[in-house]
Amino acid sequence: MSVNGPTLHRAVVEHLVRQVVYQRLGKPLPKPAGAPHPLMVNVSARHCHLTQEAVEILFGKGSQLTVHKWLYQEGQFAAKETLTLIGPRSRVISNLRILGPCRNLNQVELAYTDGIALGFDLPLRLSGNIKGTLGCMLMGPAGFFEMPEGVIRALRHVHMSPEDAEFYGVKGGDEMKLKIGGPCGLVLDKMLVRMDKSFKLEVHIDTDEGNACNLQPETSCELTK
Amino acid sequence: MSVNGPTLHRAVVEHLVRQVVYQRLGKPLPKPAGAPHPLMVNVSARHCHLTQEAVEILFGKGSQLTVHKWLYQEGQFAAKETLTLIGPRSRVISNLRILGPCRNLNQVELAYTDGIALGFDLPLRLSGNIKGTLGCMLMGPAGFFEMPEGVIRALRHVHMSPEDAEFYGVKGGDEMKLKIGGPCGLVLDKMLVRMDKSFKLEVHIDTDEGNACNLQPETSCELTK
Repeated sequence: MSVNGPTLHRAVVEHLVRQVVYQRLGKPLPKPAGAPHPLMVNVSARHCHLTQEAVEILFGKGSQLTVHKWLYQEGQFAAKETLTLIGPRSRVISNLRILGPCRNLNQVELAYTDGIALGFDLPLRLSGNIKGTLGCMLMGPAGFFEMPEGVIRALRHVHMSPEDAEFYGVKGGDEMKLKIGGPCGLVLDKMLVRMDKSFKLEVHIDTDEGNACNLQPETSCELTK
Repeated sequence: MSVNGPTLHRAVVEHLVRQVVYQRLGKPLPKPAGAPHPLMVNVSARHCHLTQEAVEILFGKGSQLTVHKWLYQEGQFAAKETLTLIGPRSRVISNLRILGPCRNLNQVELAYTDGIALGFDLPLRLSGNIKGTLGCMLMGPAGFFEMPEGVIRALRHVHMSPEDAEFYGVKGGDEMKLKIGGPCGLVLDKMLVRMDKSFKLEVHIDTDEGNACNLQPETSCELTK
Protein backbone atom coordinates (compact mmCIF):
# COMPACT_ATOMS: atom_id res chain seq x y z
CA MET A 1 0.00 0.00 0.00
CA SER A 2 1.36 3.38 -0.86
CA VAL A 3 0.81 6.32 1.45
CA ASN A 4 0.38 9.73 -0.10
CA GLY A 5 0.85 12.94 1.81
CA PRO A 6 1.92 13.34 5.43
CA THR A 7 1.30 10.34 7.74
CA LEU A 8 -1.29 10.84 10.47
CA HIS A 9 -0.21 10.15 14.02
CA ARG A 10 -1.52 6.86 15.40
CA ALA A 11 -3.46 8.69 18.14
CA VAL A 12 -5.27 10.77 15.53
CA VAL A 13 -6.19 7.68 13.49
CA GLU A 14 -7.46 5.87 16.61
CA HIS A 15 -9.52 8.90 17.55
CA LEU A 16 -11.12 9.07 14.09
CA VAL A 17 -11.82 5.33 14.06
CA ARG A 18 -13.42 5.56 17.50
CA GLN A 19 -15.71 8.38 16.33
CA VAL A 20 -16.75 6.45 13.20
CA VAL A 21 -17.38 3.22 15.15
CA TYR A 22 -19.69 4.96 17.64
CA GLN A 23 -21.50 6.66 14.75
CA ARG A 24 -22.00 3.36 12.85
CA LEU A 25 -23.26 1.63 16.01
CA GLY A 26 -25.68 4.51 16.46
CA LYS A 27 -24.42 5.05 20.00
CA PRO A 28 -23.79 8.43 21.61
CA LEU A 29 -20.13 9.43 21.80
CA PRO A 30 -18.56 9.32 25.28
CA LYS A 31 -17.08 12.71 26.15
CA PRO A 32 -13.40 12.02 25.27
CA ALA A 33 -14.39 10.48 21.90
CA GLY A 34 -16.41 13.58 21.11
CA ALA A 35 -13.42 15.87 21.64
CA PRO A 36 -12.13 17.66 18.55
CA HIS A 37 -8.70 16.04 19.04
CA PRO A 38 -7.29 13.02 20.87
CA LEU A 39 -5.49 13.63 24.17
CA MET A 40 -1.79 12.79 23.96
CA VAL A 41 0.17 12.46 27.20
CA ASN A 42 3.90 12.28 26.63
CA VAL A 43 6.77 11.97 29.07
CA SER A 44 9.54 14.50 28.48
CA ALA A 45 12.85 13.15 29.67
CA ARG A 46 15.43 15.73 30.73
CA HIS A 47 16.51 17.89 27.82
CA CYS A 48 17.72 21.32 26.82
CA HIS A 49 16.87 24.10 24.39
CA LEU A 50 19.72 26.09 22.86
CA THR A 51 20.34 29.21 20.84
CA GLN A 52 22.10 28.84 17.47
CA GLU A 53 25.07 30.65 19.03
CA ALA A 54 25.36 28.01 21.79
CA VAL A 55 25.05 25.20 19.21
CA GLU A 56 28.01 26.62 17.29
CA ILE A 57 30.15 26.99 20.42
CA LEU A 58 29.36 23.40 21.47
CA PHE A 59 29.42 21.65 18.08
CA GLY A 60 31.57 23.95 15.93
CA LYS A 61 31.19 27.02 13.71
CA GLY A 62 28.28 26.66 11.26
CA SER A 63 26.86 23.55 13.00
CA GLN A 64 23.13 22.93 12.81
CA LEU A 65 20.93 20.64 14.92
CA THR A 66 19.88 17.55 12.96
CA VAL A 67 16.64 15.62 13.40
CA HIS A 68 16.76 12.40 15.40
CA LYS A 69 12.99 12.10 15.87
CA TRP A 70 10.06 14.38 15.14
CA LEU A 71 7.92 15.23 18.17
CA TYR A 72 4.14 15.52 18.30
CA GLN A 73 4.09 19.33 18.19
CA GLU A 74 4.51 20.53 14.61
CA GLY A 75 8.13 21.28 13.66
CA GLN A 76 9.62 20.24 17.03
CA PHE A 77 12.25 17.53 17.13
CA ALA A 78 14.70 15.66 19.32
CA ALA A 79 18.13 16.30 17.84
CA LYS A 80 20.78 13.69 17.14
CA GLU A 81 23.21 15.91 19.03
CA THR A 82 23.58 15.38 22.79
CA LEU A 83 25.57 17.15 25.49
CA THR A 84 27.24 16.60 28.82
CA LEU A 85 25.91 18.76 31.65
CA ILE A 86 28.27 19.62 34.51
CA GLY A 87 26.53 20.81 37.65
CA PRO A 88 27.74 23.22 40.34
CA ARG A 89 29.13 20.34 42.43
CA SER A 90 31.01 18.89 39.44
CA ARG A 91 28.52 16.09 39.07
CA VAL A 92 27.64 15.16 35.53
CA ILE A 93 24.70 14.11 33.35
CA SER A 94 25.75 12.55 30.05
CA ASN A 95 23.79 12.26 26.82
CA LEU A 96 21.51 15.20 27.57
CA ARG A 97 19.14 15.43 24.62
CA ILE A 98 18.73 18.73 22.75
CA LEU A 99 15.31 19.66 21.41
CA GLY A 100 15.16 21.66 18.20
CA PRO A 101 14.72 23.97 16.45
CA CYS A 102 16.94 26.55 18.16
CA ARG A 103 15.28 29.09 20.44
CA ASN A 104 16.24 32.54 21.61
CA LEU A 105 17.23 31.26 25.05
CA ASN A 106 19.22 28.45 26.63
CA GLN A 107 17.29 26.32 29.08
CA VAL A 108 17.80 22.91 30.71
CA GLU A 109 14.73 21.02 31.96
CA LEU A 110 15.41 18.36 34.58
CA ALA A 111 13.30 16.19 36.87
CA TYR A 112 13.67 16.58 40.65
CA THR A 113 15.35 13.14 40.69
CA ASP A 114 18.03 14.54 38.34
CA GLY A 115 18.32 17.63 40.52
CA ILE A 116 18.95 15.54 43.63
CA ALA A 117 21.57 13.46 41.79
CA LEU A 118 23.34 16.66 40.68
CA GLY A 119 22.96 18.45 44.02
CA PHE A 120 20.79 21.15 42.39
CA ASP A 121 17.89 22.80 44.17
CA LEU A 122 15.67 23.09 41.09
CA PRO A 123 13.18 25.93 40.83
CA LEU A 124 9.73 25.07 39.42
CA ARG A 125 9.27 27.44 36.47
CA LEU A 126 7.16 27.95 33.43
CA SER A 127 9.35 27.21 30.41
CA GLY A 128 11.01 30.46 29.30
CA ASN A 129 10.80 32.10 32.74
CA ILE A 130 14.38 31.48 33.87
CA LYS A 131 15.36 34.79 35.48
CA GLY A 132 17.39 34.29 38.66
CA THR A 133 17.70 30.50 38.29
CA LEU A 134 20.97 28.59 38.63
CA GLY A 135 23.11 27.87 35.61
CA CYS A 136 25.44 25.06 34.62
CA MET A 137 28.28 24.21 32.27
CA LEU A 138 27.52 22.40 29.03
CA MET A 139 30.17 20.38 27.24
CA GLY A 140 30.00 19.45 23.55
CA PRO A 141 32.52 17.95 21.13
CA ALA A 142 33.77 21.41 20.06
CA GLY A 143 33.82 23.21 23.38
CA PHE A 144 32.24 24.37 26.61
CA PHE A 145 29.32 26.74 26.98
CA GLU A 146 28.58 28.33 30.33
CA MET A 147 24.90 28.96 30.98
CA PRO A 148 24.66 31.65 33.68
CA GLU A 149 21.04 30.67 34.37
CA GLY A 150 18.29 28.45 32.99
CA VAL A 151 18.26 25.11 34.82
CA ILE A 152 14.66 24.44 35.87
CA ARG A 153 12.04 21.85 36.61
CA ALA A 154 9.35 22.77 34.10
CA LEU A 155 5.82 23.45 35.30
CA ARG A 156 3.37 20.78 34.17
CA HIS A 157 1.41 21.99 31.20
CA VAL A 158 -0.97 21.05 28.46
CA HIS A 159 -0.69 22.45 24.93
CA MET A 160 -3.99 23.11 23.23
CA SER A 161 -5.62 24.99 20.40
CA PRO A 162 -8.48 27.46 20.95
CA GLU A 163 -10.86 24.73 19.65
CA ASP A 164 -9.67 22.29 22.37
CA ALA A 165 -9.87 25.05 25.00
CA GLU A 166 -13.48 25.67 24.04
CA PHE A 167 -14.29 21.94 24.29
CA TYR A 168 -12.78 21.72 27.80
CA GLY A 169 -14.19 25.09 28.85
CA VAL A 170 -10.82 26.61 29.75
CA LYS A 171 -8.55 29.40 28.56
CA GLY A 172 -4.78 29.96 28.41
CA GLY A 173 -3.30 30.28 31.92
CA ASP A 174 -6.02 28.17 33.58
CA GLU A 175 -5.11 25.09 35.61
CA MET A 176 -6.51 21.64 34.88
CA LYS A 177 -6.15 18.14 36.34
CA LEU A 178 -4.90 15.03 34.59
CA LYS A 179 -6.20 11.73 35.90
CA ILE A 180 -3.95 8.81 34.99
CA GLY A 181 -5.40 5.32 35.51
CA GLY A 182 -3.89 1.90 36.13
CA PRO A 183 -2.80 0.01 39.24
CA CYS A 184 -0.74 2.93 40.56
CA GLY A 185 -2.80 5.75 39.11
CA LEU A 186 -2.79 9.35 40.26
CA VAL A 187 -4.22 12.77 39.56
CA LEU A 188 -1.80 15.55 38.64
CA ASP A 189 -3.04 18.93 39.87
CA LYS A 190 -2.08 22.37 38.54
CA MET A 191 -1.67 21.44 34.91
CA LEU A 192 -1.24 24.82 33.23
CA VAL A 193 -3.11 25.48 29.97
CA ARG A 194 -0.88 26.88 27.20
CA MET A 195 -3.06 27.87 24.29
CA ASP A 196 -1.98 28.70 20.77
CA LYS A 197 -3.51 28.20 17.33
CA SER A 198 -0.49 26.12 16.30
CA PHE A 199 -0.65 23.72 19.29
CA LYS A 200 -1.80 20.12 19.11
CA LEU A 201 -3.51 18.76 22.24
CA GLU A 202 -0.70 17.31 24.32
CA VAL A 203 0.27 17.05 27.98
CA HIS A 204 3.94 17.03 28.87
CA ILE A 205 4.89 15.40 32.14
CA ASP A 206 8.39 14.58 33.34
CA THR A 207 10.00 11.20 34.08
CA ASP A 208 9.27 11.41 37.83
CA GLU A 209 5.58 11.94 37.10
CA GLY A 210 5.52 9.27 34.38
CA ASN A 211 7.28 6.73 36.58
CA ALA A 212 5.26 7.54 39.71
CA CYS A 213 2.24 6.08 37.86
CA ASN A 214 4.09 3.75 35.44
CA LEU A 215 2.54 5.52 32.43
CA GLN A 216 2.34 3.15 29.45
CA PRO A 217 0.97 3.75 25.94
CA GLU A 218 -2.28 1.97 26.88
CA THR A 219 -2.78 3.75 30.24
CA SER A 220 -6.04 5.70 30.37
CA CYS A 221 -5.71 9.47 30.80
CA GLU A 222 -8.43 12.03 31.37
CA LEU A 223 -8.08 15.80 31.36
CA THR A 224 -10.57 17.71 33.51
CA LYS A 225 -11.11 21.21 34.88
CA MET B 1 16.58 20.66 80.23
CA SER B 2 16.80 16.95 80.79
CA VAL B 3 14.58 14.55 78.89
CA ASN B 4 13.39 11.43 80.65
CA GLY B 5 12.10 8.37 78.85
CA PRO B 6 11.87 7.83 75.11
CA THR B 7 11.84 10.95 72.91
CA LEU B 8 8.57 11.71 71.12
CA HIS B 9 8.74 12.15 67.38
CA ARG B 10 8.48 15.76 66.24
CA ALA B 11 5.25 15.02 64.34
CA VAL B 12 3.63 13.66 67.49
CA VAL B 13 4.66 16.73 69.51
CA GLU B 14 3.35 19.07 66.81
CA HIS B 15 0.07 17.16 66.71
CA LEU B 16 -0.35 17.43 70.49
CA VAL B 17 0.53 21.15 70.49
CA ARG B 18 -1.98 21.77 67.71
CA GLN B 19 -4.72 20.02 69.68
CA VAL B 20 -3.95 22.00 72.84
CA VAL B 21 -3.82 25.33 70.98
CA TYR B 22 -7.24 24.80 69.40
CA GLN B 23 -8.62 23.79 72.81
CA ARG B 24 -7.17 26.88 74.54
CA LEU B 25 -8.53 29.15 71.81
CA GLY B 26 -11.90 27.50 72.29
CA LYS B 27 -12.07 26.72 68.57
CA PRO B 28 -13.35 23.49 67.06
CA LEU B 29 -10.63 21.13 65.87
CA PRO B 30 -10.25 20.84 62.07
CA LYS B 31 -10.56 17.18 61.03
CA PRO B 32 -6.84 16.30 60.73
CA ALA B 33 -6.08 17.88 64.12
CA GLY B 34 -8.81 15.76 65.67
CA ALA B 35 -7.28 12.51 64.42
CA PRO B 36 -5.92 10.17 67.07
CA HIS B 37 -2.46 10.35 65.50
CA PRO B 38 -0.59 12.69 63.15
CA LEU B 39 -0.25 11.63 59.51
CA MET B 40 3.34 10.94 58.55
CA VAL B 41 4.22 10.68 54.86
CA ASN B 42 7.71 9.35 54.26
CA VAL B 43 9.60 8.67 51.07
CA SER B 44 11.20 5.22 50.96
CA ALA B 45 14.26 5.27 48.75
CA ARG B 46 15.19 1.93 47.12
CA HIS B 47 16.14 -0.65 49.73
CA CYS B 48 16.16 -4.33 50.51
CA HIS B 49 15.05 -6.70 53.25
CA LEU B 50 17.23 -9.73 53.98
CA THR B 51 17.15 -12.98 55.91
CA GLN B 52 19.82 -13.53 58.58
CA GLU B 53 21.25 -16.24 56.30
CA ALA B 54 21.70 -13.76 53.44
CA VAL B 55 23.30 -11.21 55.81
CA GLU B 56 25.90 -13.78 56.84
CA ILE B 57 26.69 -14.77 53.24
CA LEU B 58 27.09 -11.10 52.26
CA PHE B 59 28.82 -9.73 55.37
CA GLY B 60 30.45 -12.81 56.92
CA LYS B 61 29.56 -15.60 59.34
CA GLY B 62 27.92 -14.30 62.51
CA SER B 63 27.37 -10.78 61.07
CA GLN B 64 24.42 -8.79 62.32
CA LEU B 65 22.77 -5.69 60.84
CA THR B 66 23.65 -2.59 62.83
CA VAL B 67 21.45 0.50 63.27
CA HIS B 68 22.23 3.53 61.12
CA LYS B 69 18.91 5.30 61.78
CA TRP B 70 15.69 4.29 63.50
CA LEU B 71 12.59 4.54 61.30
CA TYR B 72 9.15 5.77 62.31
CA GLN B 73 7.64 2.28 62.68
CA GLU B 74 8.62 0.78 66.05
CA GLY B 75 11.75 -1.38 65.91
CA GLN B 76 12.45 -0.79 62.20
CA PHE B 77 15.77 0.68 61.15
CA ALA B 78 17.97 1.58 58.21
CA ALA B 79 21.15 -0.45 58.63
CA LYS B 80 24.69 0.87 58.36
CA GLU B 81 25.37 -2.00 55.95
CA THR B 82 24.79 -1.41 52.24
CA LEU B 83 25.03 -3.64 49.17
CA THR B 84 25.69 -3.58 45.47
CA LEU B 85 22.85 -4.88 43.30
CA ILE B 86 23.71 -6.40 39.93
CA GLY B 87 20.79 -6.63 37.53
CA PRO B 88 20.11 -9.12 34.76
CA ARG B 89 21.84 -6.90 32.18
CA SER B 90 24.92 -6.48 34.39
CA ARG B 91 23.92 -2.96 35.29
CA VAL B 92 24.60 -1.99 38.88
CA ILE B 93 23.09 -0.01 41.76
CA SER B 94 25.60 0.79 44.49
CA ASN B 95 24.97 1.62 48.13
CA LEU B 96 21.62 -0.15 48.29
CA ARG B 97 20.35 0.39 51.83
CA ILE B 98 19.28 -2.60 53.93
CA LEU B 99 16.33 -2.20 56.29
CA GLY B 100 16.38 -4.18 59.51
CA PRO B 101 15.62 -6.24 61.44
CA CYS B 102 16.03 -9.38 59.32
CA ARG B 103 12.92 -10.91 57.81
CA ASN B 104 12.06 -14.40 56.60
CA LEU B 105 12.39 -13.37 52.94
CA ASN B 106 14.76 -11.48 50.68
CA GLN B 107 13.16 -8.61 48.80
CA VAL B 108 14.45 -5.58 46.89
CA GLU B 109 12.14 -2.58 46.50
CA LEU B 110 12.98 -0.22 43.63
CA ALA B 111 11.30 2.74 41.94
CA TYR B 112 10.35 2.46 38.26
CA THR B 113 13.13 4.97 37.52
CA ASP B 114 15.62 2.49 39.02
CA GLY B 115 14.03 -0.34 37.06
CA ILE B 116 14.45 1.55 33.78
CA ALA B 117 18.10 2.32 34.62
CA LEU B 118 18.72 -1.39 35.34
CA GLY B 119 16.71 -2.68 32.39
CA PHE B 120 14.25 -4.41 34.77
CA ASP B 121 10.54 -4.68 34.03
CA LEU B 122 9.42 -4.27 37.65
CA PRO B 123 6.21 -5.93 38.82
CA LEU B 124 3.97 -3.90 41.14
CA ARG B 125 3.53 -6.06 44.23
CA LEU B 126 2.41 -5.91 47.80
CA SER B 127 5.50 -6.25 49.98
CA GLY B 128 6.01 -9.98 50.71
CA ASN B 129 4.16 -11.17 47.61
CA ILE B 130 7.17 -11.92 45.43
CA LYS B 131 6.26 -15.26 43.81
CA GLY B 132 7.27 -15.38 40.15
CA THR B 133 9.13 -12.05 40.17
CA LEU B 134 12.62 -11.55 38.76
CA GLY B 135 15.67 -11.89 40.95
CA CYS B 136 19.10 -10.28 41.01
CA MET B 137 22.59 -10.76 42.34
CA LEU B 138 23.61 -8.98 45.54
CA MET B 139 27.25 -8.29 46.36
CA GLY B 140 28.56 -7.61 49.85
CA PRO B 141 32.06 -7.36 51.31
CA ALA B 142 32.14 -11.09 52.16
CA GLY B 143 30.47 -12.57 49.10
CA PHE B 144 27.69 -12.80 46.56
CA PHE B 145 24.11 -13.81 47.21
CA GLU B 146 21.83 -14.77 44.36
CA MET B 147 18.19 -13.89 44.88
CA PRO B 148 16.13 -16.09 42.55
CA GLU B 149 13.14 -13.76 42.91
CA GLY B 150 12.06 -10.73 44.91
CA VAL B 151 12.76 -7.53 42.97
CA ILE B 152 9.58 -5.44 43.01
CA ARG B 153 8.08 -1.99 42.92
CA ALA B 154 6.14 -1.95 46.18
CA LEU B 155 2.44 -1.12 46.13
CA ARG B 156 1.67 2.23 47.77
CA HIS B 157 0.39 1.70 51.27
CA VAL B 158 -0.52 3.32 54.53
CA HIS B 159 0.25 1.71 57.88
CA MET B 160 -2.38 2.29 60.53
CA SER B 161 -3.67 1.02 63.84
CA PRO B 162 -7.31 -0.10 64.32
CA GLU B 163 -7.92 3.25 66.09
CA ASP B 164 -6.74 5.19 62.99
CA ALA B 165 -8.78 2.90 60.71
CA GLU B 166 -11.89 3.68 62.75
CA PHE B 167 -11.22 7.44 62.52
CA TYR B 168 -10.85 7.27 58.72
CA GLY B 169 -13.72 4.77 58.34
CA VAL B 170 -11.63 2.13 56.58
CA LYS B 171 -10.38 -1.40 57.22
CA GLY B 172 -7.27 -3.40 56.26
CA GLY B 173 -7.16 -4.04 52.49
CA ASP B 174 -9.20 -0.94 51.59
CA GLU B 175 -7.82 1.66 49.21
CA MET B 176 -7.47 5.33 50.11
CA LYS B 177 -6.24 8.49 48.39
CA LEU B 178 -3.42 10.76 49.49
CA LYS B 179 -3.66 14.39 48.43
CA ILE B 180 -0.28 16.13 48.44
CA GLY B 181 -0.33 19.92 48.17
CA GLY B 182 2.13 22.50 46.91
CA PRO B 183 2.88 24.03 43.50
CA CYS B 184 3.14 20.61 41.81
CA GLY B 185 0.70 18.73 43.98
CA LEU B 186 -1.05 15.50 43.11
CA VAL B 187 -3.42 12.87 44.43
CA LEU B 188 -2.13 9.32 44.74
CA ASP B 189 -4.90 6.76 44.16
CA LYS B 190 -5.00 3.16 45.35
CA MET B 191 -3.18 3.64 48.62
CA LEU B 192 -3.63 0.24 50.30
CA VAL B 193 -4.53 0.19 54.00
CA ARG B 194 -2.32 -2.14 56.05
CA MET B 195 -3.75 -2.36 59.54
CA ASP B 196 -2.07 -3.77 62.64
CA LYS B 197 -2.18 -2.92 66.34
CA SER B 198 1.57 -2.28 66.27
CA PHE B 199 1.47 0.17 63.32
CA LYS B 200 1.94 3.91 63.60
CA LEU B 201 0.03 6.02 61.07
CA GLU B 202 2.44 6.40 58.15
CA VAL B 203 2.28 6.48 54.36
CA HIS B 204 5.23 5.12 52.42
CA ILE B 205 5.71 6.44 48.91
CA ASP B 206 8.72 5.91 46.69
CA THR B 207 11.21 8.40 45.29
CA ASP B 208 9.36 8.74 41.94
CA GLU B 209 6.18 9.65 43.77
CA GLY B 210 7.98 11.95 46.22
CA ASN B 211 9.84 13.75 43.43
CA ALA B 212 6.82 13.99 41.11
CA CYS B 213 5.31 16.39 43.69
CA ASN B 214 8.55 17.64 45.30
CA LEU B 215 7.42 16.44 48.73
CA GLN B 216 9.06 18.51 51.48
CA PRO B 217 8.69 18.29 55.27
CA GLU B 218 6.29 21.24 55.24
CA THR B 219 4.14 20.03 52.30
CA SER B 220 0.49 19.51 53.28
CA CYS B 221 -0.84 15.94 53.00
CA GLU B 222 -4.37 14.70 53.44
CA LEU B 223 -5.52 11.10 53.57
CA THR B 224 -9.07 10.42 52.38
CA LYS B 225 -11.31 7.51 51.45
